[in-house]
Amino acid sequence: MTILDVINKKKKKQKLSKDEIVFFIDGMLDGSIADYQISALLMAIVLNGMDLEETINLTDAMINSGIVINLSSIDGVIVDKHSTGGVGDKVTLILAPLLASLGIKIAKMSGRGLGHTGGTIDKLESIPGYKVEMNQADFIKQVNDINISVISQSPELVPADKRLYALRDVTGTVDSIPLIASSIMSKKIASGADLIVIDVKVGNGALLNTLEEAKELAKTMVYIGKHYNKIVICELTDMSVPLGYAIGNSLEVKEAINTLQGIGPDDVMELIISTASMIVGAVKNVGIEEAEQLCFKQINNGEAYQKFVEWIKAQGGNLDKLEVSEHSVSVYSDKAGYISGINTMQLGEIARLLGAGRLKQTDKIDYKVGLVLNHKIGDYVDVNDELVKIYLGDKDVKLSAVLACFEISDTYPKKLPLVYDVIN
Amino acid sequence: MTILDVINKKKKKQKLSKDEIVFFIDGMLDGSIADYQISALLMAIVLNGMDLEETINLTDAMINSGIVINLSSIDGVIVDKHSTGGVGDKVTLILAPLLASLGIKIAKMSGRGLGHTGGTIDKLESIPGYKVEMNQADFIKQVNDINISVISQSPELVPADKRLYALRDVTGTVDSIPLIASSIMSKKIASGADLIVIDVKVGNGALLNTLEEAKELAKTMVYIGKHYNKIVICELTDMSVPLGYAIGNSLEVKEAINTLQGIGPDDVMELIISTASMIVGAVKNVGIEEAEQLCFKQINNGEAYQKFVEWIKAQGGNLDKLEVSEHSVSVYSDKAGYISGINTMQLGEIARLLGAGRLKQTDKIDYKVGLVLNHKIGDYVDVNDELVKIYLGDKDVKLSAVLACFEISDTYPKKLPLVYDVIN
Repeated sequence: MTILDVINKKKKKQKLSKDEIVFFIDGMLDGSIADYQISALLMAIVLNGMDLEETINLTDAMINSGIVINLSSIDGVIVDKHSTGGVGDKVTLILAPLLASLGIKIAKMSGRGLGHTGGTIDKLESIPGYKVEMNQADFIKQVNDINISVISQSPELVPADKRLYALRDVTGTVDSIPLIASSIMSKKIASGADLIVIDVKVGNGALLNTLEEAKELAKTMVYIGKHYNKIVICELTDMSVPLGYAIGNSLEVKEAINTLQGIGPDDVMELIISTASMIVGAVKNVGIEEAEQLCFKQINNGEAYQKFVEWIKAQGGNLDKLEVSEHSVSVYSDKAGYISGINTMQLGEIARLLGAGRLKQTDKIDYKVGLVLNHKIGDYVDVNDELVKIYLGDKDVKLSAVLACFEISDTYPKKLPLVYDVIN
Repeated sequence: MTILDVINKKKKKQKLSKDEIVFFIDGMLDGSIADYQISALLMAIVLNGMDLEETINLTDAMINSGIVINLSSIDGVIVDKHSTGGVGDKVTLILAPLLASLGIKIAKMSGRGLGHTGGTIDKLESIPGYKVEMNQADFIKQVNDINISVISQSPELVPADKRLYALRDVTGTVDSIPLIASSIMSKKIASGADLIVIDVKVGNGALLNTLEEAKELAKTMVYIGKHYNKIVICELTDMSVPLGYAIGNSLEVKEAINTLQGIGPDDVMELIISTASMIVGAVKNVGIEEAEQLCFKQINNGEAYQKFVEWIKAQGGNLDKLEVSEHSVSVYSDKAGYISGINTMQLGEIARLLGAGRLKQTDKIDYKVGLVLNHKIGDYVDVNDELVKIYLGDKDVKLSAVLACFEISDTYPKKLPLVYDVIN
């Protein structure tokens, strides 16, 4: 077998065998297959697809490329949660301590920001002192002690994905359901959780723009989960508008704290309760209404927030030192009307340009910068009303580019639901 | 513009603009676009195609990547001939001196063997002393003096093709009509001839396996030719069986000499007369029957062969020193019946393994090795009749693999025509 045989087969839209997929992943990692051959195969996969069996074989080959975490020394159902990536998505920061405060075990390995979307690990690092690296024994001990730990993914976990993702990012081969599904699921399976909740984002700020694609991705991931005896629940949620008002690392941590204290944005709270109650229902085997009540209670009685404080402290973070930039400028509306659209991806890109994300892997993040929206879709604004406040660091940004992200019209817009569907 | 924009556009099956194609070719040559990005775009082109305008823009960008030969100091119509590559294809060695003996100017730059197919320059180099490199002034002088010169392509001619071809060869992105057409036509246009004859090979020994694909390629090349005010004539000919009996460099030169002396294989002679008379008809503005008579006459009166000798001598070659291997083994039929099929590509691969071609660009060719068939399709063979003689060098070959190239059946096979069609 040569890699040319494998490329030619997929080019002709034929099904790859398990051996061929293993040959590809192994050859990529041992350097016998060149990057230009990998990218040709990736493009053939993007355009000609892979069926479910191929996708499982790819996921399996990727899992086997690295270590698999064994969490059997943690008692109870271990929950992991993943988002396919959005703008302003601070859900993990809130959901994880809320669930932990209810006795549910959260042993989570998170990633960094990709493209225009932020990453949970970057957000946590905006809290001075927070340690994102921990050896496995300490990680397990912390979960056993206080029900929660969130650390960065070990480089030994699915190294094939790291290599593949780096290439996909620069060769236009990101938007493929089998490639996305195997990338996410290989990391989730290798991380060892029992119940995996995946928030599949849909809309102009997400990787996938249509509900059909999102549904297919969700079904694929649920199918892969079953193969590994994992419970996978996919929520399909809207990303045609940023989640909450804050975009940027420490700004989002502050909004997460507000939400844990019951004073967060409505959409963030709605998504938290929707996701958390599904998980609570499944783990505690209670009805959805009872689960919702349990979640609300943990916010209202302060226990979710206390768990957050306990968790951050356990990993060395000092919340008193959390800072946002003192230098801000505002962007004002140039006309009156209803906000009818927000170019969410563009706002994410602007946050990245400000320093909230990376353009190159070696770039340093400026944790204090970002954007805070003053209005969302459906709000009426007058001329000169503040649309957004920009928290600046040492990078410049064109105010006109920020203003251009807002579509303002005379008629009240159709509002999209926040949660489109749940697939499990 | 970034290369990602270009890749994503072709991935979505959109038409690339002239600027985008120039950006791609320029970026490839100045190193700002990485090989893995080029190969992703190539695979997207293979799978999503390019229309005629894109193909012309690609051809143009490739021509502009290097020098363009100016042959205006040669009097008369200058003819170039190209084959898309076959096994045993020694046509140029015969056709070029035949035409030159009729006063037609042959100023030809040829390539080396690619994959399982041989190259004219490698064949000429099997004649000790033959110089394949010549400066432009000497090249033009020789054509003016004796009507013919065949040299190797200057590396300054279409450097973009060299780079692209090397990548296509190892990424499964060879078989694309716009990529093949622009590769061939950019070199032909940059080489400066007025009338370009292209032999598009079809069948199991060729790059293209179906007549439909071959026709589309031919039409594309004729269209490109018109754009540059060149006369392009495409012959669609069979390559489901090797051309002639000999495969391998000096073996093919010997068969070419036999053909020039009127004692060559029927199929080689048939193709030579077909191609030559088309060219003679077009250049001398005579009917096809008169042109055929002129060609036969040059073979029969020895003038075509004399021109061959004159040409080879002018470029330093010593035909007395032409050698084939003294070590040969024969492969015999293991059953009786009609030869009904020959795995032509596999025979080409076996010749390559013997040393007649290269596996890596740095491999040295063994000019003395190769295969000489004893029978072709439709011949009846008995058990133990010799099928093929193998001329060996220092490389080994499995006789069973050679035997497996011959399909023998009880019924007389349907014979395919040698020339399927002419498109101009």
